[in-house]
Amino acid sequence: MAPAALLPLLALLAPGLGAAPPDRDRDRDPARLWCRSPDIAAACQAPSPCAHPSQPAAAPVELSLFYESLCPACRRFLVQQLFTTWLLLPPEALSITLVPYGNAQTCLMHEAKNFSSYFPVIFCLESGSSVTKTLEACLQVYAPQLDGARIAACVRGDTGAALMHRNAQRTEALDPPHQYVPWVVVNGKHTDELQAQAEASLLGLVCRLYQGEKPEACGSSRTPEAPPRCRR
Amino acid sequence: MAPAALLPLLALLAPGLGAAPPDRDRDRDPARLWCRSPDIAAACQAPSPCAHPSQPAAAPVELSLFYESLCPACRRFLVQQLFTTWLLLPPEALSITLVPYGNAQTCLMHEAKNFSSYFPVIFCLESGSSVTKTLEACLQVYAPQLDGARIAACVRGDTGAALMHRNAQRTEALDPPHQYVPWVVVNGKHTDELQAQAEASLLGLVCRLYQGEKPEACGSSRTPEAPPRCRR
Repeated sequence: MAPAALLPLLALLAPGLGAAPPDRDRDRDPARLWCRSPDIAAACQAPSPCAHPSQPAAAPVELSLFYESLCPACRRFLVQQLFTTWLLLPPEALSITLVPYGNAQTCLMHEAKNFSSYFPVIFCLESGSSVTKTLEACLQVYAPQLDGARIAACVRGDTGAALMHRNAQRTEALDPPHQYVPWVVVNGKHTDELQAQAEASLLGLVCRLYQGEKPEACGSSRTPEAPPRCRR
Repeated sequence: MAPAALLPLLALLAPGLGAAPPDRDRDRDPARLWCRSPDIAAACQAPSPCAHPSQPAAAPVELSLFYESLCPACRRFLVQQLFTTWLLLPPEALSITLVPYGNAQTCLMHEAKNFSSYFPVIFCLESGSSVTKTLEACLQVYAPQLDGARIAACVRGDTGAALMHRNAQRTEALDPPHQYVPWVVVNGKHTDELQAQAEASLLGLVCRLYQGEKPEACGSSRTPEAPPRCRR
């Protein structure tokens, strides 16, 4: 099977993985397009998000993460808690804002624009052998449409400095002021308890806070639908 | 901070990420070494796995995955369920065996030997823009100690053919015989119910089956310990 045929599945699963083209980006909610008819949903192998298309959507849990790209505890939280929770939950349950202190990642975000395009690249950088030396490899894997040279130029130039300054201002404006990183803000609030819960099990926290129908990853009791499989 | 200083944290979190050196490999249980004294645990920033070092260990849940490297449903399961569950659970709760149909991955496993060395590379291949064209990039990110040329030689040669044949035999020996992929065997058993539960929420399934103290990712009610953070 040609790799191109794989894209919609991964784009649906976690858009951006599988190098989803921009018009199928999570930020533009491809599932809604794919659920316009049962025929389209079947062609996209997308039964799960289409099962209840007429239900009103609950607001996603809004999570902001203030972090430094080289801080071990930040890497741990981003890799283990944030990325896994993002992969496990449907797009409507969780909305993530990253506020990094680190030129390369702010420039990557600026160039990629869509969360689902840059987050897999940031995961790749933070989880791999070197945060600073694997940008080209991570772009090749997760965002081959992006130009590494443009990102490098941003890092070296005024744009990178301005982006870092803006993130510093957003960080300084936190109320209460942050005392460490990673610093988590959930639905506009930071408390010691929210921070501790996010660090212990972000998935559990988001599942508790999300007011919509519980996703399967939250231990929903509804009978799971049989997912697509490959006959041998 | 030098990237080298980051390795123990990621190696502890999910050994293999962060290019953990072989002697810190998950398969050799670094946490046990690091928990030999409170001083070592503190130096390793490893409080969580050291909190209850004297408790007898329960057996891990044993999961075997039979899959094809290009099958969309296999990619979905491996990326969304298996990798996230592996990242979220401690090593003692889950033991994974991969039985791929796909030369490159069998040769990668043969060369890397340790699960925690090759699983991040396989995740990278399966989650990225191309399963077949990103081996070098994924090795650079997750296993720079491995030689891509040796893996390529294995794929082209007799070793690759023999490894594929062995995996085909293991697959044909399944009882009941497999009807599709991904095909999941949990603690030596395959049933429709186990398969459906694994596909809906592998994390939930492993949490239910694991007889040891429930990990935090399972919604443990014990008070979370404050993880290491970075002061700014």
